[in-house]
Amino acid sequence: MDLKKFIRDIPDFPEKGIIFRDITPLLKDKNAFQYAINEMTTALKSIDFDVIAAPEARGFIFGGALAYNLGKSFVPIRKPGKLPYKTLSEKYQLEYGTAELEIHEDAINEGEKVLIFDDVLATGGTAKTLKSLIEKTGGIVAGMAFLIELTYLNPRKLLKDEKVISLITY
Amino acid sequence: MDLKKFIRDIPDFPEKGIIFRDITPLLKDKNAFQYAINEMTTALKSIDFDVIAAPEARGFIFGGALAYNLGKSFVPIRKPGKLPYKTLSEKYQLEYGTAELEIHEDAINEGEKVLIFDDVLATGGTAKTLKSLIEKTGGIVAGMAFLIELTYLNPRKLLKDEKVISLITY
Repeated sequence: MDLKKFIRDIPDFPEKGIIFRDITPLLKDKNAFQYAINEMTTALKSIDFDVIAAPEARGFIFGGALAYNLGKSFVPIRKPGKLPYKTLSEKYQLEYGTAELEIHEDAINEGEKVLIFDDVLATGGTAKTLKSLIEKTGGIVAGMAFLIELTYLNPRKLLKDEKVISLITY
Repeated sequence: MDLKKFIRDIPDFPEKGIIFRDITPLLKDKNAFQYAINEMTTALKSIDFDVIAAPEARGFIFGGALAYNLGKSFVPIRKPGKLPYKTLSEKYQLEYGTAELEIHEDAINEGEKVLIFDDVLATGGTAKTLKSLIEKTGGIVAGMAFLIELTYLNPRKLLKDEKVISLITY
C-alpha cells in the first residue's frame, strides 16, 4: 500500500514556506491506519526495547497503538504544565525562540531501553531533545521511529549515532 | 485486575481542590495497559460504530490503540489552531472562562456512526461539546467511552440520552 496517498500536503502551515504533512486522511482510512501500524510493528521487532516514549499530541496516536500491539509500556512526553506529578524538563531551540518538553521523573526505570516514537522526523532537533529527557530519567535510547521522515531537512546528520526507522519518506 | 491500583491521585492539580486522576502509572505497566485496552475493546463490541473520535492529548493514547484494535477509523479533535486543514469549532464553558475544540470539516462522512473516547468523564461538559462537533460534521454519535468516570460529579445527568461506557469509577 502506498501510504503517501493518505498524507495531505498543507502549504504554509503552521508558518509561511512550510509544507505540513497532514496524517489525518491516513487515520481516517481504517485500512491504511491498520496497515501503517502493522508495518511499523514489524519494523520495530528489529529493535530490543521495553518502553515507547512519545511526545504530545500526534505522537500519542501511533505511540499508544504500537505500545499496545507490541506489549510495551507507554510514556507520554508533554508540554510544560501538563504532567501532574514531578517532572524533568528540557528546553530546545526552534527556528524562532525556544520550546520545552517534560517527562515524569519516575516515568522510566534505571537502565530501561526506550524507543522514541513521533509522527514526523524533520530536522531531528525534537528527537535529540527527547533523547536528552529520557537519559535524564536513567533510560537508554534503543532507537527512534517515525511515520514520516523529511529527508530534505537532513535529520540523519543530527542523529547519525541513532538507530532510526521511518515508514514514509519525502 | 484492579485498574485503580494503577491510577495515581494528585491533589490540587491542575487547580486547588481538584483531585487529578493520573493514568501514567497504568500506561507504564505494560500488563495493566494491555488489560485496560482489552477490556475496553470487549465492552465496545456492544456498540455499532465506524469511527473513534477523541480529544487531545490523553484521549489519543487509548483512542488510537482502540481504533487499531477494533479496525476503526480515528479522528483527532484538537485545541484551536492545531489542525492544519479547514475546521469546524465549538466553544464551551469551563469553571472559569471558556474553551474551544476543533475538528476537520471532512473528518467524518455524512451518517457515519461515531464513538467518542476520552480518558476521564468528569461533569460531561466536554463530552457534550464533542457530540455537538461531531454532529456539525454530519456524523451520528453512537456512544461514549471513558477509561475513568467521576460519578460524584454526576456526568450521567448531562448525558442521560447517551450510551456511556466506563472502565474505572470513582
